[in-house]
Amino acid sequence: MKNIYFTAGPAELYPRFEEFVKQAVDEQIGSISHRSGQFRKIYQHCVENLRVLMNIPETSGIFFTGSASEVWERILLNMVEHESFHLVNGSFSDKFYKYAGSLNKFAHKQEKPIGEGFSYAEVEVPEYAELICTTQNETSTGVQMREADIHKLKRSNQKRFVAVDMVSSAPIPELDLDLIDTAFFSVQKAFGLPAGLGVWIANEKCLDKSKKLAKQDGTHIGAHHTLPALWKNYETFETPATPNVMGIYLLGKVAEDMNKTGIDTIRKETDEKARKIYKYLETSSLCSIAVTNPEHRSRTVIVANTNKPSKVIIEALKEKNMILGSGYGPNKDSQIRISNFPSNTPEQVDNLLKELKKLE
Amino acid sequence: MKNIYFTAGPAELYPRFEEFVKQAVDEQIGSISHRSGQFRKIYQHCVENLRVLMNIPETSGIFFTGSASEVWERILLNMVEHESFHLVNGSFSDKFYKYAGSLNKFAHKQEKPIGEGFSYAEVEVPEYAELICTTQNETSTGVQMREADIHKLKRSNQKRFVAVDMVSSAPIPELDLDLIDTAFFSVQKAFGLPAGLGVWIANEKCLDKSKKLAKQDGTHIGAHHTLPALWKNYETFETPATPNVMGIYLLGKVAEDMNKTGIDTIRKETDEKARKIYKYLETSSLCSIAVTNPEHRSRTVIVANTNKPSKVIIEALKEKNMILGSGYGPNKDSQIRISNFPSNTPEQVDNLLKELKKLE
Repeated sequence: MKNIYFTAGPAELYPRFEEFVKQAVDEQIGSISHRSGQFRKIYQHCVENLRVLMNIPETSGIFFTGSASEVWERILLNMVEHESFHLVNGSFSDKFYKYAGSLNKFAHKQEKPIGEGFSYAEVEVPEYAELICTTQNETSTGVQMREADIHKLKRSNQKRFVAVDMVSSAPIPELDLDLIDTAFFSVQKAFGLPAGLGVWIANEKCLDKSKKLAKQDGTHIGAHHTLPALWKNYETFETPATPNVMGIYLLGKVAEDMNKTGIDTIRKETDEKARKIYKYLETSSLCSIAVTNPEHRSRTVIVANTNKPSKVIIEALKEKNMILGSGYGPNKDSQIRISNFPSNTPEQVDNLLKELKKLE
Repeated sequence: MKNIYFTAGPAELYPRFEEFVKQAVDEQIGSISHRSGQFRKIYQHCVENLRVLMNIPETSGIFFTGSASEVWERILLNMVEHESFHLVNGSFSDKFYKYAGSLNKFAHKQEKPIGEGFSYAEVEVPEYAELICTTQNETSTGVQMREADIHKLKRSNQKRFVAVDMVSSAPIPELDLDLIDTAFFSVQKAFGLPAGLGVWIANEKCLDKSKKLAKQDGTHIGAHHTLPALWKNYETFETPATPNVMGIYLLGKVAEDMNKTGIDTIRKETDEKARKIYKYLETSSLCSIAVTNPEHRSRTVIVANTNKPSKVIIEALKEKNMILGSGYGPNKDSQIRISNFPSNTPEQVDNLLKELKKLE
């Protein structure tokens, strides 16, 4: 019997994943050259479908990397000369911040206790920060920053860049990518694909900055996957190095399929499932909502404090072939994490809640 | 009818590829956590089989990146404080050299005209070079550097690091990885897998150097996939960020299967097929061997000058469902490239030569 994954990623695979893999095998996608017309069509198809799905402006480039973690480094190298600023409210936003320090950037952070998130009004941007890094959805804590707050943050910081980590939420947030300079995600979360591909969206202002930095003495923008190299190749739907061709093919297929359903429908279904899960947690004797402020509660990665060791709940559900995530880091034993991605169907969520109730 | 790929990579897939993919799908490998015991077993299985296959010492670490091109950057960042030295005899060795310049390293090169390779005796290593970068097999020109020459180069440069690009030849060369400090390859060449995974082998001296560099002011070793972070995670068969889990799984399966055949048998078969192809080219009226010196002729990527535009030959073979590579860069129209990877069976090679003869 197959497991149902409610993990925060790698996660439950997209319902049509097997069918798409079979198509890729039949079409020999693993053998085609990344300099062929066939590959360029795959890149273009993927990009066009992501553009529709996430309302990405035509003027922004869409690039592929090995992972979203790689994009943290590429953004910092290509867009920061001296100072970056990070809103830290969990392990992943903290890693983004630490990457900046490793690259000898002067990295500022504003930090929240575990389980708390940021609203626009409380953000204090340091005077010389060139880039503001926000994490729309913190996979480790289940905290989100609302789109409206991110938009206000950018509007009041027109001369700075704003980068949005959408790793475990894209394509669910309605982020205004006309306004936001750069955003990125990985495919093993809400897109329901195997890991090994990061997606980076950036506007022309990002490109200009990276070109300017590349010319400056005493700094460098890296050598691999620099923004100018990615962008130049993207113009003909190519990549600087051999990419995860199969991953790009599969992402295009999933994005196309999501467009057939319609992003509004997917978002509505996601909201409804999230509401159900939070509603259950509100009255459960087994576990309770970890994020106090309703506005900061993630729609895609729901974190609950458990009244017994998380392991007990996780093991009990495993016997029913339902795989839950444990808490992250220090909260491993006292929290569970439940993914609410498009691949987690309403029926699966209902069954999960039924099983949780039985454990009370 | 399926195509047979004689391209230099992405290439013909491993004969049991489809079966292994089906196993991965059945085992839900795309959903498992990269922090789970199940993943650690996959990493360990892959590493143990690569160790047997390529005779990699227990003391060396084996790491996974997004591509081999990424490894160029990681090696330069982690192992070079000031100066690197590059043996350049084609487009890929030249890219490795240019990466060093992009990272503000003082990069030296010794260069050969297209189609010529290096022997040990002629290499002149600059006095202050910390790292010597060689390309065992130049995918763009079909030129190899023999293992014995690489070994002599290291033996006479004990205090410098030697890095070997085996991208389009591993696991065929009998490289002494007890002697060589670091080597790397990608999976879409001789391993017959879809692209999206680079493999980096490094010894403890490389790790020591990267740790030393990380502490030094005014330099940095990058933030993503630094050698210390990769090594620390590798000790428990984990990775710093979510890797291409499916790719690692498939590589382990292919390496295991190759070990069943035995690397000696695979090498012998590769040599026999190469001999046949070169023998045909010696007397062909259609095309001729591009690499004059027999010692520098690649066993895995065979390049031929064509007596008519390469396109004519490529198109004619395409009608027979055989996909050849064109020449690289400036030689696109005047050369063909024929892969001779383990996935290209002796029968396929015989059929290819038959069809080429018909075109004479």
